[in-house]
Amino acid sequence: MQEVPETNTANEKQVTPQSDARAPAPVPAVMPNVVIVGAGFGGLHAARALRNVPVDVTVIDRNNHHLFQPLLYQVATAVLSPAEIAAPIRSVLRKQKNTEVLLGEVMGVDTQAQRVLLDDDQYVPYDYLILATGARDSYFGHNDWAQCAPGLKSIVQATAIRRKILQAFEMAERETDPEKRKALLTFVLVGAGPTGVEMAGAIAGLAHKTLVSDFRHIKTEQARIVLVEALPRILMAFDERLAKKAQTALNRLGVEVRTNSPVEAIDCDGAVIAGERIPAKTVIWTAGVAASPAGEWLGAETDRGGRVKVGSDVSVQGHPNIFVIGDTASFTQDGKPLPGVAQVAIQQGQHVASVIADRVAGKPHPEAFRYVDKGNMATVGRYYSIVSIGKFRTAGLLGWVMWLVLHLMFLIGFRNRLVVGFQWLVYLTTFQRGARLITSGDEIHYQ
Amino acid sequence: MQEVPETNTANEKQVTPQSDARAPAPVPAVMPNVVIVGAGFGGLHAARALRNVPVDVTVIDRNNHHLFQPLLYQVATAVLSPAEIAAPIRSVLRKQKNTEVLLGEVMGVDTQAQRVLLDDDQYVPYDYLILATGARDSYFGHNDWAQCAPGLKSIVQATAIRRKILQAFEMAERETDPEKRKALLTFVLVGAGPTGVEMAGAIAGLAHKTLVSDFRHIKTEQARIVLVEALPRILMAFDERLAKKAQTALNRLGVEVRTNSPVEAIDCDGAVIAGERIPAKTVIWTAGVAASPAGEWLGAETDRGGRVKVGSDVSVQGHPNIFVIGDTASFTQDGKPLPGVAQVAIQQGQHVASVIADRVAGKPHPEAFRYVDKGNMATVGRYYSIVSIGKFRTAGLLGWVMWLVLHLMFLIGFRNRLVVGFQWLVYLTTFQRGARLITSGDEIHYQ
Repeated sequence: MQEVPETNTANEKQVTPQSDARAPAPVPAVMPNVVIVGAGFGGLHAARALRNVPVDVTVIDRNNHHLFQPLLYQVATAVLSPAEIAAPIRSVLRKQKNTEVLLGEVMGVDTQAQRVLLDDDQYVPYDYLILATGARDSYFGHNDWAQCAPGLKSIVQATAIRRKILQAFEMAERETDPEKRKALLTFVLVGAGPTGVEMAGAIAGLAHKTLVSDFRHIKTEQARIVLVEALPRILMAFDERLAKKAQTALNRLGVEVRTNSPVEAIDCDGAVIAGERIPAKTVIWTAGVAASPAGEWLGAETDRGGRVKVGSDVSVQGHPNIFVIGDTASFTQDGKPLPGVAQVAIQQGQHVASVIADRVAGKPHPEAFRYVDKGNMATVGRYYSIVSIGKFRTAGLLGWVMWLVLHLMFLIGFRNRLVVGFQWLVYLTTFQRGARLITSGDEIHYQ
Repeated sequence: MQEVPETNTANEKQVTPQSDARAPAPVPAVMPNVVIVGAGFGGLHAARALRNVPVDVTVIDRNNHHLFQPLLYQVATAVLSPAEIAAPIRSVLRKQKNTEVLLGEVMGVDTQAQRVLLDDDQYVPYDYLILATGARDSYFGHNDWAQCAPGLKSIVQATAIRRKILQAFEMAERETDPEKRKALLTFVLVGAGPTGVEMAGAIAGLAHKTLVSDFRHIKTEQARIVLVEALPRILMAFDERLAKKAQTALNRLGVEVRTNSPVEAIDCDGAVIAGERIPAKTVIWTAGVAASPAGEWLGAETDRGGRVKVGSDVSVQGHPNIFVIGDTASFTQDGKPLPGVAQVAIQQGQHVASVIADRVAGKPHPEAFRYVDKGNMATVGRYYSIVSIGKFRTAGLLGWVMWLVLHLMFLIGFRNRLVVGFQWLVYLTTFQRGARLITSGDEIHYQ
């Protein structure tokens, strides 16, 4: 076995790297510790940008994988397997000698002692801290809705939604009561942002194409897919003309779009939308997110969504060595807060890495962070996406090709790119989906 | 919505097929019902062999997928994703117009009324019944071992084992106590049949190749893999020379093989093997199986392993219209019971289908079932398999190529064959595995 330190002092790395054949060239004895919490887009890009900076980097995540969230809806609708949009964080960072990865859940931050508290009461000391802990579902004060209307943030949620959707068809096949059968074949999506729109299109494809010849007692084509939105229109992040085109495309796919329709109640047999009860065994929450509890850990000032207000260098007021990035940060640019999208997290992660690199080198870092909007896209079923890049707008097949190419490019790992590309090819040509698995909800628990 | 029958009489199909555009050409009003319970190798091949027989076939399974069990150990060791070795039963049988699929759990059989009882108190009537319900783990009277030493029969078990194995490395990375770390890096496999041997080889590859550069505080190469067997040698289904070669190959991979070593106790911190306690956080049960409870449903005569004794046409004594096939059947040939392997199940399924076809046609079926042994193979890590076909024997690369080709051929579905082939190609050239996912044990339960 390796040598392990006998004692733990607060401002020393908890487990000192052993010396072995794989160790890099000698480095100064004490390098500043950079701790990154969360290996989503922001955290992972910050870590990568620190690869050649003379610091020790520790990436902490409660999952062992980086998740490519933009394609999570395809896991929830049985097109892709979870592993195809996930990459082990260790594996992604394995060649980065100054970086280690810890699987663990962060419980808090001791800003006085400069250390991060983990779930097993261990501490990880830091000189610089980057919190990239993302967002979670927010039910606007109705947390009781969560049990019946799951959100789509993690692999566990995605496979639970996949099970829910596939099981609804199976139960409908065995149901003899027409009303109950109808409720089983009704799918309600609450919230018409990109995730809601993409889920609606994917469920429509499942019901109207993939499953059509598989059942004997139900016509899956008759499944009803309802996309509801409290605001006057769908896809508020896009301009009105593109959103209108997306809505028309949704209608063509057989999706009912209801705008100006706030959800008033949700239970496990349906939802009340703008005064009308829709019996539905499957309700999926694609509406609101709130920031992770990073603001509470720091006792920092947050906005209404719980996001930590950060300054021009993305650091937290009063804590120049603590940075909050991505969905957990509230950064105001040109008078407006930046949206919770991957590009903001990535650019902030890279900026923070450069700030730290300059500070470690004793150089000033004069430039404030500035987000460069690289555009926005959403896909509506097969062969149709809307794309908005600068002043360029397109809707349809061209947009879909752009969507396809960009998503394959940004997926991490050569293998995943090829497998996802192949799964899409088969899906697009045969309608058959690669991951139509109902795995038991009675997950076995082992110690 | 479709018309549904108002009443359920016992010997009518419960939910009569609707007439719609997809309906096949008119058929006689009443065709005999063949109910097949279980869509493993035996059940699925029986269903397929009945495709052109004038019967109504109902396939009942508690899972929505047919599972290719011979590769389940690769899911448990993060090489493949679950969906890559599974195919939706509906999808496999969708073009077979005389066949429907029910997702449901069978609770019993009413042989008087000739109907199968499902978990929701519904009944499915049959004229012919084929029970192909497979096997489950048997702990030889020590059911308390199950919690700490899971078996490998289902996808849920495979992903639970995957989580257990990957988490052991993660916890070892954070563990500072050398003894505890050693127990985390010790993997014990109880039972040296093909599954035990294949798991041992795959865990060795994971520890000694795949993970080597991913950790900073542990040397995964030092992981200890112990394969224990109560009998004097491993792989009793193969002849002694081949088994010896496999054992040498295992030793080369760094696996400790202990024969003549009965397991005496198992808890979640280790196992007692032939009097010696081995501290190990991961113990996997690859030893014994027992038949499914089909024998209890029928009140039929069973052997020690709970397998139903069947006659020369694979029917149950006193019930000429009930057949039990595969791992649940005890069929004696040349004075010996047939082994619980896929080929026996497949051949029995096909035989039973031909018996039913002849009976329906009013023809006699003079031939008794006779198993034709098509051979046996097991793989030991990369590029090494042992193969025994008739008098032909080989061990090594040639065997491995045969193993590879046959497993790809027998996988169901063009897509799965290609994806698995690609995953293997990447694994063999880079050691990187395609499904290194720890998904939470706290599976979310939705109604």
